[in-house]
Amino acid sequence: MTRSLYSDLAGESAAHRHLSDEAFLTGLLTVESALSVAAARAGALSDAEAATAVETIRNYHPDLEEISRQSAEGANPTIPVVKALKAIDPTGIHPGATSQDIIDTSLMLCLRDATGEIIAELGELADLLAELTRTHRDTPMMAHTLGQQAVPTTVGCITAGWLQAVLRSRAALQELRFEVSYGGAAGTMTATHPHGFAIQDALAAELGLHNSGLVWHSDRIPVTTIAAALATAAGAVRKIAGDVIFLSASEISELREAQPGGSSAMPHKANPAAAIACDGYARRVPGLLATLFDALDCRLQRGTGSWHAEWQTIRELAAATASAVGRCRRSIDGIVVDTDRMEQHLTGTDVGHAPEIADRVLELYEGK
Amino acid sequence: MTRSLYSDLAGESAAHRHLSDEAFLTGLLTVESALSVAAARAGALSDAEAATAVETIRNYHPDLEEISRQSAEGANPTIPVVKALKAIDPTGIHPGATSQDIIDTSLMLCLRDATGEIIAELGELADLLAELTRTHRDTPMMAHTLGQQAVPTTVGCITAGWLQAVLRSRAALQELRFEVSYGGAAGTMTATHPHGFAIQDALAAELGLHNSGLVWHSDRIPVTTIAAALATAAGAVRKIAGDVIFLSASEISELREAQPGGSSAMPHKANPAAAIACDGYARRVPGLLATLFDALDCRLQRGTGSWHAEWQTIRELAAATASAVGRCRRSIDGIVVDTDRMEQHLTGTDVGHAPEIADRVLELYEGK
Amino acid sequence: MTRSLYSDLAGESAAHRHLSDEAFLTGLLTVESALSVAAARAGALSDAEAATAVETIRNYHPDLEEISRQSAEGANPTIPVVKALKAIDPTGIHPGATSQDIIDTSLMLCLRDATGEIIAELGELADLLAELTRTHRDTPMMAHTLGQQAVPTTVGCITAGWLQAVLRSRAALQELRFEVSYGGAAGTMTATHPHGFAIQDALAAELGLHNSGLVWHSDRIPVTTIAAALATAAGAVRKIAGDVIFLSASEISELREAQPGGSSAMPHKANPAAAIACDGYARRVPGLLATLFDALDCRLQRGTGSWHAEWQTIRELAAATASAVGRCRRSIDGIVVDTDRMEQHLTGTDVGHAPEIADRVLELYEGK
Amino acid sequence: MTRSLYSDLAGESAAHRHLSDEAFLTGLLTVESALSVAAARAGALSDAEAATAVETIRNYHPDLEEISRQSAEGANPTIPVVKALKAIDPTGIHPGATSQDIIDTSLMLCLRDATGEIIAELGELADLLAELTRTHRDTPMMAHTLGQQAVPTTVGCITAGWLQAVLRSRAALQELRFEVSYGGAAGTMTATHPHGFAIQDALAAELGLHNSGLVWHSDRIPVTTIAAALATAAGAVRKIAGDVIFLSASEISELREAQPGGSSAMPHKANPAAAIACDGYARRVPGLLATLFDALDCRLQRGTGSWHAEWQTIRELAAATASAVGRCRRSIDGIVVDTDRMEQHLTGTDVGHAPEIADRVLELYEGK
Repeated sequence: MTRSLYSDLAGESAAHRHLSDEAFLTGLLTVESALSVAAARAGALSDAEAATAVETIRNYHPDLEEISRQSAEGANPTIPVVKALKAIDPTGIHPGATSQDIIDTSLMLCLRDATGEIIAELGELADLLAELTRTHRDTPMMAHTLGQQAVPTTVGCITAGWLQAVLRSRAALQELRFEVSYGGAAGTMTATHPHGFAIQDALAAELGLHNSGLVWHSDRIPVTTIAAALATAAGAVRKIAGDVIFLSASEISELREAQPGGSSAMPHKANPAAAIACDGYARRVPGLLATLFDALDCRLQRGTGSWHAEWQTIRELAAATASAVGRCRRSIDGIVVDTDRMEQHLTGTDVGHAPEIADRVLELYEGK
Repeated sequence: MTRSLYSDLAGESAAHRHLSDEAFLTGLLTVESALSVAAARAGALSDAEAATAVETIRNYHPDLEEISRQSAEGANPTIPVVKALKAIDPTGIHPGATSQDIIDTSLMLCLRDATGEIIAELGELADLLAELTRTHRDTPMMAHTLGQQAVPTTVGCITAGWLQAVLRSRAALQELRFEVSYGGAAGTMTATHPHGFAIQDALAAELGLHNSGLVWHSDRIPVTTIAAALATAAGAVRKIAGDVIFLSASEISELREAQPGGSSAMPHKANPAAAIACDGYARRVPGLLATLFDALDCRLQRGTGSWHAEWQTIRELAAATASAVGRCRRSIDGIVVDTDRMEQHLTGTDVGHAPEIADRVLELYEGK
Repeated sequence: MTRSLYSDLAGESAAHRHLSDEAFLTGLLTVESALSVAAARAGALSDAEAATAVETIRNYHPDLEEISRQSAEGANPTIPVVKALKAIDPTGIHPGATSQDIIDTSLMLCLRDATGEIIAELGELADLLAELTRTHRDTPMMAHTLGQQAVPTTVGCITAGWLQAVLRSRAALQELRFEVSYGGAAGTMTATHPHGFAIQDALAAELGLHNSGLVWHSDRIPVTTIAAALATAAGAVRKIAGDVIFLSASEISELREAQPGGSSAMPHKANPAAAIACDGYARRVPGLLATLFDALDCRLQRGTGSWHAEWQTIRELAAATASAVGRCRRSIDGIVVDTDRMEQHLTGTDVGHAPEIADRVLELYEGK
Repeated sequence: MTRSLYSDLAGESAAHRHLSDEAFLTGLLTVESALSVAAARAGALSDAEAATAVETIRNYHPDLEEISRQSAEGANPTIPVVKALKAIDPTGIHPGATSQDIIDTSLMLCLRDATGEIIAELGELADLLAELTRTHRDTPMMAHTLGQQAVPTTVGCITAGWLQAVLRSRAALQELRFEVSYGGAAGTMTATHPHGFAIQDALAAELGLHNSGLVWHSDRIPVTTIAAALATAAGAVRKIAGDVIFLSASEISELREAQPGGSSAMPHKANPAAAIACDGYARRVPGLLATLFDALDCRLQRGTGSWHAEWQTIRELAAATASAVGRCRRSIDGIVVDTDRMEQHLTGTDVGHAPEIADRVLELYEGK
């Protein structure tokens, strides 16, 4: 899913490893294994049955292409995986679970790990922006409103504005809870009654996921909440990239990427290539977000298409966000601030509260 | 904005009063008045100057159509309002503010009040769903997955699933903070330096809004956060409406709206009209949400179009959400549960953890 | 629907008159009247019955607010209108029709008339762009790629590029066919069998609409085709506006709107207000378009919400497009081309095929 | 791009081969080779120089991963490819071209070939639907409006409605023109002046693409036109799938897929898996469409991110459409029409014009 001449630029980002089809398939097996252990913890399986299941899964190495082909029959990749495992071990595999439990939980593992990487990269970006803000707290430059030079501000006040959105979106990502899914065939945990809740708890504990103690097969808010937080981060870095592109324009040249992109036809150019790539990834996110909010309309106990649309869309959204954040960090890393150009453009000297506004964001950054 | 043959169905909802153009214009004046008072509190104006400004604003009764026409020149409704007010009182009006401060703060007032109404109506819906859940905690019916009868569950387990999403989305709305905006011409509060932060605090206090102590002219996360929470509520009720429509189908007839819609051509029909209208409003929301997340891409110190696109879109999104919630409440209010039909469809009796799952959601509802 | 402090800027555009709720309601009556006449033409009603019906409709003056309230019951404004008319004239009103026939046909009338105005305004815009292109066919300026100065081009080549998209989108609008809807209760024209097709033909003739001879109650391609063409026009003018905003930036100043917007706080500014408003309207369109394409998913013989979502969305989309086109025309009308600034920025003189490329677009404009 | 546990279901569709990264990269080389030949045809290169270039390209076998990595520098995969080729052959490679010429033209090749496959599969679907329509022209069943049984229609009238949208969307795809791109560094074809237009013509001829004789580097209507036509096809099949899912519901059971999907937990189920997968793919399309219409906002002579966002999005949109069409065909192929169930549900016998409406669509199908 994350491979492409273009999306592979994103390959730099560690987040993509957690969003690939391989990671998704590995996640299915990780969940099945943890489920057998959890069922034993809850008393629905014997320890021996669980141990056999775990061993069976460890020795099972499905071929991605093959599973993909077999997925067609049930429109679902879990069915062929479980079928193969149950053929070897009819007892301890997939206790009381439905495909959606395994897929939703595997997706949560992928998203948790990818989000962790995105949070880390946002942190590095925040460090770079905080450094810029400190260095240029008082460096005057013209503010622009509606595309026109307005009145003076400081570089630090502008980079603090960028940092502010990065911190807000990172905070939203840090507050996310990645929820385990265990509800059984129709969300009633009938097959493992009365052990259902105990299995749900143990599965969450095994995988380090959050357990609301509820069933969310057809309440997709856990997915849209993650998607909205990721989309906020994508928007935060897209704003930075757009400002870098504008301030790097030849006629303005107040900023310049450390490693601008060249042009085969025009060697004199210094394109803000990282910022442009950032924008290219980030502007794909709102449309993907709309698809996921549309998927809240999930029919009865399992979506008839709405659920299936989530699998690719949420991973695309997370991958595009990871790429955008990675490209933004690259754009800001070592960015050249041309104070002479800024001075040439300057009209007036009063920067008002600009430096103090920068200080306030730095306090936010420092957690004060 | 909220008038139309169709959107006026939503007129029932009190939220719409807070989202109209009249409310938005009134909000501009409310903010200007509070700003003059806040400036006096902060020492940037004398009490007499503030009192004069407040009086000037109280006596100013702009014509909506006229202001709309005059707004064209600057693509902004605040400019003609401030121009008219300053012509009367050059001293105490609009101290140190920019149009965006007034518009953003007025929008926050509209959204805060509309959200309050939506939260209240979600509460009424939650009460109805909780009652249904209690009444039918153990009433068996068939669960449906992928559009097919699956295994037995209980009516209460299904309505609890609806309630769960309503509670989650209401909680997200209750956590929202509506943020005051005060940054001045270019976000540096230069014109009122050194009183800027004090004015920001006093303005928030006057209006009962949250103050982050930051400037968010070009950090639009306060808007997208509200939009995402509203869209979550719209999705939560759309799911309920879709299930009601399905379970009301002639061949299923397990549910029936208390006041089904008729048909001029087919008097025998009992259309789940409220649920259908709910879906009609709610499915407009994801596209509107995408526009607002796209508007995070705000150029430098003031968006060149992205900001302007928010004004109508966020109010449309809130109005559609309010309408959807209102129609869903109407659909559920007095909904007929046909237990005989459910029994006819039933295969098997084991409902597993269904009643306990209902209990857990009821505990959430009761705040335990 | 088209009223708002902001959308009323669009009020300038004649298109809005055709998209208002009043126009929509008037359309319902126009269609009912034409339908009775058509039924007589087809032999399903006597001329006398049709004449009575037409008279009844002529003397019926529904109150918009009242109809809106009554629409709630059936989630449909036609039901109360037909009910009121049939109470007066039980015989000749609404022959063999269903609400969707009336609403869809009324919407087509609104969209046809609004699109006509948009086509006309695109024509005026094309005239202005053609004039600019002729005048500056050979005026050299720097081209920009990826935000950077690239190599020389001509002003005429750039304005020709704008004109090209305007002409392409106008052509798409001119090719649109606005289709009559007549299918009866369930799309089988049973109530007027065997006169159904004849009524469909006569109704189209009465209203000057296209008749495919088919029923499209649940084939919504006639709606999405119109929406996509309008969205293309919105995108074409948004691109122009964005370029005007960029080239009007203080540091570039190669273009300047004839009537730039002022700022209450910064009188020195010359904001490209019309271009900014154009962008503000146009960027709302893609999200609205997504909602309409989503509504292609129309259940069985009448959409359960998907159809209802179209009514407001398609009119919003058309209104936003009309506003964007109107603002773009305003932006280009008398736009100042600063050839001195362009010359200062120029590096090199070779403009290659630029003038001939301009000529080719002018030929397209002149219909050669 | 098209690989994923889920999207590989789509792997069945031949269209995906044309949308892969490998196909995109191969396309870049195909275009470069054809460009050298075209330049010779136009007299801008000698035949010998062109022959050497073609040979150089034939012997060049780039590694996808490596090119992807190198693409990061310029946010563009063409730059490393051209750099490598020019290192071997400085003379005849990339004559007068810019990266965008190569990428846009390669995308057009991918989309033309993928669209051809989609048109073919829509044709197979149309054949199946026409057969169903003929067979069941007069088979009565209940129509459903607003989710309720309405009045009788015929199976053939309903399947004709499905066929109608398939034919309309296929016609839109058949009318598409896939346009060659050749404009040079800044859209002025300066480097190959005065041979530019001749090269453009020859390149189109070499590749069998359409040539408007214009430059569309920043007029993206050729992309959105293709996207809208594909999205229409996706919507047409999504509507069919949704109806199949509804009519396959256990309580209705009027339709049944020939190869329904099973459930690991509930062997008794007969899920309309193909229809569900169809919906899962198709509902991702409107959001992707919005992103592409947003990309019409392309800054000056080359988009700064808007262009880059197209590469993945348009291929995702085409791939999802291809998958949806393929799954719909699978769903309809051999679908079981349970006329006994239909008769049980029937109230009344008058089907009005239903059979004739079916005939009219069949005439459209037969091209009469």
